[in-house]
Amino acid sequence: MTTGKLILLRHGQSKWNESNQFTGWVDVALTEKGEGEARRGGELLKEQNILPDVVYTSLLRRAICTAHLALDAADRLWIPVIRDWRLNERHYGALQGLNKAETKEKYGEDQFMAWRRSYDTPPPPLAADAEYSQAHDVRYSNLETVPDTECLLDVVKRFVPYFEEEILPRVLKGETVLVAAHGNSLRALVKHLDGISDEDIAGLNIPTGIPLVYELDDKGQVTNPGGTYLDPEAAAAGAAAVAAQGGK
Amino acid sequence: MTTGKLILLRHGQSKWNESNQFTGWVDVALTEKGEGEARRGGELLKEQNILPDVVYTSLLRRAICTAHLALDAADRLWIPVIRDWRLNERHYGALQGLNKAETKEKYGEDQFMAWRRSYDTPPPPLAADAEYSQAHDVRYSNLETVPDTECLLDVVKRFVPYFEEEILPRVLKGETVLVAAHGNSLRALVKHLDGISDEDIAGLNIPTGIPLVYELDDKGQVTNPGGTYLDPEAAAAGAAAVAAQGGK
Repeated sequence: MTTGKLILLRHGQSKWNESNQFTGWVDVALTEKGEGEARRGGELLKEQNILPDVVYTSLLRRAICTAHLALDAADRLWIPVIRDWRLNERHYGALQGLNKAETKEKYGEDQFMAWRRSYDTPPPPLAADAEYSQAHDVRYSNLETVPDTECLLDVVKRFVPYFEEEILPRVLKGETVLVAAHGNSLRALVKHLDGISDEDIAGLNIPTGIPLVYELDDKGQVTNPGGTYLDPEAAAAGAAAVAAQGGK
Repeated sequence: MTTGKLILLRHGQSKWNESNQFTGWVDVALTEKGEGEARRGGELLKEQNILPDVVYTSLLRRAICTAHLALDAADRLWIPVIRDWRLNERHYGALQGLNKAETKEKYGEDQFMAWRRSYDTPPPPLAADAEYSQAHDVRYSNLETVPDTECLLDVVKRFVPYFEEEILPRVLKGETVLVAAHGNSLRALVKHLDGISDEDIAGLNIPTGIPLVYELDDKGQVTNPGGTYLDPEAAAAGAAAVAAQGGK
């Protein structure tokens, strides 16, 4: 039996990507540019005939809309859909809503990069009554504890077990699975898939809107380390742009 | 324990509604007008605070996109989604793709109305190799037999058992369920819910894009016969427009 493929798709530009604000769990919509990126991602899937049998999304509209637009372009809107909070972006704690450039100026480059890229130190927690808190958001009402901040390790802890229990078995039985999610939830997954160290993961940036395809053997081990971007040139340019964020 | 609500939403105008063609299982997209109807449907849900906990759609993009746009407007994109072919529009057999006005002219008013509204006589079957056949459509590859024509009774036979097994139990345990589907699959369900006779169902027309809310007791019996449209005036006008279809 051949295994299926795992396709990772980071959502396109959101309104707060555009305004350079930390987003995290705040449910911000895509921009028109972001919608176009999602459609282009779906066209790449169609052109290269890598067609999802099932799609997983986070509970955030920028990932949900990205999946919808990509699947529309790939003529696969009809496949089963599973949404789960474990695919959500990293909760950015008290940084949610703040402007990235202003934050960098205020706290300095070192603290800024530590918050963005430290593996195991989360930003300060966000107060439950803060404007951009999700403490009382109905979509998380069945969670025992709604996060008030997360580091990348926290995302690994919630997402990787879910991946292994829910997503990987589908790939192993031959399904092609699309995961439409976020910069940091996908970094957490890629860290696991490629066995990247806690230090090296800081340097990994995933571009938006370009499907990243992993092939797995029947033990779930990656056979194309680093995965394969369906548009490698655009992916390299996109990763560089993500790395440069925080500039004005 | 209180039961939930059942919300029926017929997709907005599709490109073949606009061009007056029989659609059936052909996977035609919404028009801009249809997209607007879907958003308006979601706004009505939000305004009246009737918020779905789960959504069911057919496998056809006009229902899938209607659900997506309505849930986006209602800020409920994150709810679980289930897609099933049993919610599909009636398969229109050899009529799929034909212009309604031309068909009426060619075959006469009586035959035309019999095909559109007869409860138990399907149109002639569509050949498997015809342009608008779904015999080889991958989305139906797990069906034992892909329909080549259906009458409303056939839709009742596939959809009502699915409703009773999958959808009704959710309503009975208190969930509000959105069903985004089609003129004839919703007529089949309404026939069952309201106990409409095989003869009288011919006269029932469901308008597009206006949520129709049913309330059920703990035995699954409807307590508001005929349901409640969230915009009754627009619903009456819409139903009249559906009844007039087939004119030029």
